[in-house]
Amino acid sequence: MRRRRTRQGGDSSARALDAIFRPRSVAVVGASRRQHAIGAEILRNLVAFGFQGAVYPVNPRASVVQSIRCHRNLAEVPGRLDLAIVVVPSRQVSRVLGQCARKGVRGVVTITAGFREIGPQGARLERRLAARLARHGMRMVGPNCMGVINTEEAVQLNATFASSVPARGNIGFVSQSGALGEAILAEAAQRGLGVAMFVSVGNKADVSGNDLLEYWEHNDDVQAILMYLESFGNPRRFTQIARRVTRRKPIITVKGGRTPAGARAASSHTGALVGGVDVATDSLLEQCGVLRVSTMSEMFVQAAALAQQPVPRGDRFAIVTNAGGPGILCTDACVALGLRPAELRPATRRSLARVLPPEASTANPVDMIASADAAAYRAVLERVKRDDGVDGLIAIFVSPIMTDAYEVARAIADAADRTKPVLSVFMGKRRSAEGIEELRRRRVPLYQFPEEAASGLSALVRYRQLRDAPAGRERRFTVRRSAARVAVASARRARRAWLSPDECRRLLVAYGFPLAPRREVSSAAEAISAAQELGYPVVLKVVSSKILHKSDVGGVRLDLRNADELGRSYREIVARLGRAEPRLRFEVQPMISGGHEVILGMARDVQFGPLLLFGLGGIHAETLRDVAVRLHPLTDVGARSMIERVRGYPLLLGARGERAACLPLIEECLLRLSQLVGDLADDLAELDLNPLIVTDRRARSFVVDARIALR
Amino acid sequence: MRRRRTRQGGDSSARALDAIFRPRSVAVVGASRRQHAIGAEILRNLVAFGFQGAVYPVNPRASVVQSIRCHRNLAEVPGRLDLAIVVVPSRQVSRVLGQCARKGVRGVVTITAGFREIGPQGARLERRLAARLARHGMRMVGPNCMGVINTEEAVQLNATFASSVPARGNIGFVSQSGALGEAILAEAAQRGLGVAMFVSVGNKADVSGNDLLEYWEHNDDVQAILMYLESFGNPRRFTQIARRVTRRKPIITVKGGRTPAGARAASSHTGALVGGVDVATDSLLEQCGVLRVSTMSEMFVQAAALAQQPVPRGDRFAIVTNAGGPGILCTDACVALGLRPAELRPATRRSLARVLPPEASTANPVDMIASADAAAYRAVLERVKRDDGVDGLIAIFVSPIMTDAYEVARAIADAADRTKPVLSVFMGKRRSAEGIEELRRRRVPLYQFPEEAASGLSALVRYRQLRDAPAGRERRFTVRRSAARVAVASARRARRAWLSPDECRRLLVAYGFPLAPRREVSSAAEAISAAQELGYPVVLKVVSSKILHKSDVGGVRLDLRNADELGRSYREIVARLGRAEPRLRFEVQPMISGGHEVILGMARDVQFGPLLLFGLGGIHAETLRDVAVRLHPLTDVGARSMIERVRGYPLLLGARGERAACLPLIEECLLRLSQLVGDLADDLAELDLNPLIVTDRRARSFVVDARIALR
Repeated sequence: MRRRRTRQGGDSSARALDAIFRPRSVAVVGASRRQHAIGAEILRNLVAFGFQGAVYPVNPRASVVQSIRCHRNLAEVPGRLDLAIVVVPSRQVSRVLGQCARKGVRGVVTITAGFREIGPQGARLERRLAARLARHGMRMVGPNCMGVINTEEAVQLNATFASSVPARGNIGFVSQSGALGEAILAEAAQRGLGVAMFVSVGNKADVSGNDLLEYWEHNDDVQAILMYLESFGNPRRFTQIARRVTRRKPIITVKGGRTPAGARAASSHTGALVGGVDVATDSLLEQCGVLRVSTMSEMFVQAAALAQQPVPRGDRFAIVTNAGGPGILCTDACVALGLRPAELRPATRRSLARVLPPEASTANPVDMIASADAAAYRAVLERVKRDDGVDGLIAIFVSPIMTDAYEVARAIADAADRTKPVLSVFMGKRRSAEGIEELRRRRVPLYQFPEEAASGLSALVRYRQLRDAPAGRERRFTVRRSAARVAVASARRARRAWLSPDECRRLLVAYGFPLAPRREVSSAAEAISAAQELGYPVVLKVVSSKILHKSDVGGVRLDLRNADELGRSYREIVARLGRAEPRLRFEVQPMISGGHEVILGMARDVQFGPLLLFGLGGIHAETLRDVAVRLHPLTDVGARSMIERVRGYPLLLGARGERAACLPLIEECLLRLSQLVGDLADDLAELDLNPLIVTDRRARSFVVDARIALR
Repeated sequence: MRRRRTRQGGDSSARALDAIFRPRSVAVVGASRRQHAIGAEILRNLVAFGFQGAVYPVNPRASVVQSIRCHRNLAEVPGRLDLAIVVVPSRQVSRVLGQCARKGVRGVVTITAGFREIGPQGARLERRLAARLARHGMRMVGPNCMGVINTEEAVQLNATFASSVPARGNIGFVSQSGALGEAILAEAAQRGLGVAMFVSVGNKADVSGNDLLEYWEHNDDVQAILMYLESFGNPRRFTQIARRVTRRKPIITVKGGRTPAGARAASSHTGALVGGVDVATDSLLEQCGVLRVSTMSEMFVQAAALAQQPVPRGDRFAIVTNAGGPGILCTDACVALGLRPAELRPATRRSLARVLPPEASTANPVDMIASADAAAYRAVLERVKRDDGVDGLIAIFVSPIMTDAYEVARAIADAADRTKPVLSVFMGKRRSAEGIEELRRRRVPLYQFPEEAASGLSALVRYRQLRDAPAGRERRFTVRRSAARVAVASARRARRAWLSPDECRRLLVAYGFPLAPRREVSSAAEAISAAQELGYPVVLKVVSSKILHKSDVGGVRLDLRNADELGRSYREIVARLGRAEPRLRFEVQPMISGGHEVILGMARDVQFGPLLLFGLGGIHAETLRDVAVRLHPLTDVGARSMIERVRGYPLLLGARGERAACLPLIEECLLRLSQLVGDLADDLAELDLNPLIVTDRRARSFVVDARIALR
């Protein structure tokens, strides 16, 4: 990975990939005379799809394949050769790459399986391929893939063994699963969804999804990118590239396979909270503006909208229909997906009333009733589209016997003039095949059910929100890094994985976190005198490196108002825990009342590195699992969105007469935490600030407890 | 509605509906010679679908329609006539019904629109039809519908103007939207999903969805019922019938249109909490075992499984695949839908290893790799199916070039021997058309994407859970109804909508709720002496009929531990609220510590009547909206499931070292509330018990505050 990244910049990489996707000549090494052999199917697809350059079958045991003269080896191929499709047995692939290098071939697609996916032996073979590619400056898709397609008219390359052929269009498709590739192409063809390029990346020994994102970033033939991923080779690089690409064009992913969260130890709160669920991937994708869907069908539904319609200015939708039921269903689905029903202006409604029968509804959804003909669709869509309270339109047509579906389709297509997104639903298929054809030709997304149109429109709105979300900026506070390092070194010297309470405090103070005053005590008398100094009410807490979750074992007493209560609590805890730990120590802190407990934390994901976490303290985060997670590092916008994301956010605003929490302080603490995690990245394993008690005043808000583990 | 209910029992109703669905002769009144007129299309469909009886066109202005002799009116039709399809203009329909009655016709399907859906005038016309039907004991589907279909071989009735024809199968389909009907039939045909009967119910002037459920309850031709509903004519009757029917066969609904929640005043907590969302419908459907889906596609995906495969014993799934990617996607989808991956027994895995190549995975998902042929599918499916840790199977086949898809399909179909559900995914369509045909013929659900199979299997599991959920029983406690009535009467006399605190208390005590001791006071001195009597710590609360949410305005102080704190709090509240309400009164209660606050409530839904609510007290219910809602009346099982349903349930079990709540007490209070609501059904508008503080001991758990509004 690292090798390749240094070797190539964006542009040179694009030129290098052109050898694969825009070759002027292609050899099929392993072309076969056997019917249905992969080497036969690929050759057949290349010719049938009308590849604009020359195709050369290569096979030492054949002189002609599919009526084309066959060469015994690559050296015999006449003239210059750009791309080799390799279908020979796995043990021979490395030798073929050598021949490619000698022939001056710059692009390779290796279909052959039997590499990393079959175990250590295959992985060794695969590493040998990668080394050879690097040595000769060649680029390769695969191995263990089903090939590549470029529908561009000047190229017309179908170097796959797929049985379905996509129509020309503007979608770039990356599939990590060859098997799904076949289904993807079939489904795209069936839905009439046009593809610009399709790449089955297989084992990604060289060309990765990241490379393709960069390749397509400035390629205007590709207007929307669809990815089926099972793993991120380099999540950090993906984040950077995807964030850049999604400012220009949408990326939709279906990600299969959950992160191996079970493998991660979960001894801290944050560790346990981010484990088990696929939050890291969700967070990663959202942070870089990528839309994630959970099913392939949803991907196609949303891709049809994203690839064909303009991005709306806002989230207010209008529906125009000739049947009530589907209009209701569509409205429900839109609202459930977070879109807002547009309120049509009085002028619009008056103008609609002039062109519609009295039984029709001029409010949104506009129900033109079954008698509506193409002229009515044209007039109504035009008027609704002009209403500046409408950001996107869905036209529903249930084909009654008497209406000319083709003309209705034309009226809808004419309304889709790219000023606002227009999506269509045609129900009752059989009578409107021509209409369906017209809408496909005019690139108006066409669905069979109203909910699909709602999902398509919501994808456009969501893409706009993600695309336009300000990146925000990281903040650098003045901190004392050396003091923090001293604390870490002290724990390292003592060979402790967990920082002592004192080390924690020193580290956090060095990074400017507000820490609650405290006194450490080891007798009830000491506790009472500490409380007098700090002022009642106080909190009494066990200090122990053995007890991780103090309140779980009754080691925390809150709101003790006088010496009596404090002394009694002290003795009770000793009675409870003193047997297991005879020399129990305690700390006394002032009780901060009227504050909100929040938890800030950091944990590590195997794939993604440090994750930052925010949640409401105590039961909210831990029992209700109401937390927000983002990848490190955080920007100010990211920190704010974490705070606003948790379900309990209204509590922080002061729901039900309580005082609001000082949100800027929480945001600042998250950003300080981000800086801390960045500075000590290699040292920290897990970290909890739990709780940070936040009142309405910054000066009365404190980190009350913290736990920090080293790697 | 009421009329019909009394007129018909289950069986007589079934016989009456046979006239519509199993007629021996049919007249089309309004049969037309004009191409594409509805009266022409229906006649064409009747003949083309091969209706087994005689079809008689009726039209005074034609002597032959579609080569069949046409009669001028119903009287001229020779012999006995069972069913009339009415396609005449709306003003003539009533007269035609008169002719039907004279002819002895017992079933009518009125296609004609222009009734209730167009306003008051149409509604009058419709009422006239209903009256005529009742007078003559005829049954009618419609008006304003697209007709009915019965695919039964002995009948073969297609009395619709739809352009798509469903295959014979075992689904009963009710659509309230004619427009969707067309799309439903098209989609069913495309998916190869067989239909037994299809009914477009239109305005439901007579035959309703409820009638059809009863009609299909004992009809073995119908094995699964699909409903598209926009409204429930009679929700209570629906509940009773559906609960009965779903014990025998699954019902799936897509419900369009949200309840008009905005119309309901939301002055109580419970009222506000159940408003806005469609919780009542969800609750209703779940209580009677009905599966609800949010999109039509999901309905078809789930119907394919429910109509064709047996109900599994449990939720443990196994996947058999010849490609890794789809297997991962399918596993993820199953887990996301709440299914559990089966852990294959060691014996199974050993046996699989004997028939699979070493590169294959014998763990679930079983990845047989691309080389697997039909024999491998047969051997593996057989072994996995025999594993008693597996409840349901999904077979995924990605058609590689070399494998005979038809033989694979046969192997899968043979495995689907109805002992356990087997679902299939065929990807890469074009090469396996024969295989697809074979699976359809053998009634194995066939999907294009793995997630659809997951959804199908989850529907089977969910149906089993709903079907087998014990109904539970209502409980009758010994209560003092008369005392409760006195409290209500006292508020009525004073023309108050809200019961006074005292009336609330009397009513709740009469129904056996545990009320916290309290003293009402109107000076600080009185408060202090009350507190001495009750014992510190205490709670001080404003008593006011004007202030609904006391804590919102600072009218509640908790945990006051001595006379000082109590006196100070008293004066602070007076200072804060005394200006608005000069003669402020207070109550003093003992502070119950270590308890969980929960809220119990009742509100009314316009359609469904009284709803009962449960949630965790304070912010959980109101800010986090974490509540469970069910229709009145409650059974013990229902009450328990409400408690377990809220997200915060783990808190009640004693998460994080807190004490558990006495759950039997909460359940009992819910059941007492249900009894109270039943007894005072006509009086109560809204009711809140908020909070009920529940400790680990029944005797220390109390209703602390309550509000009750009359209708």
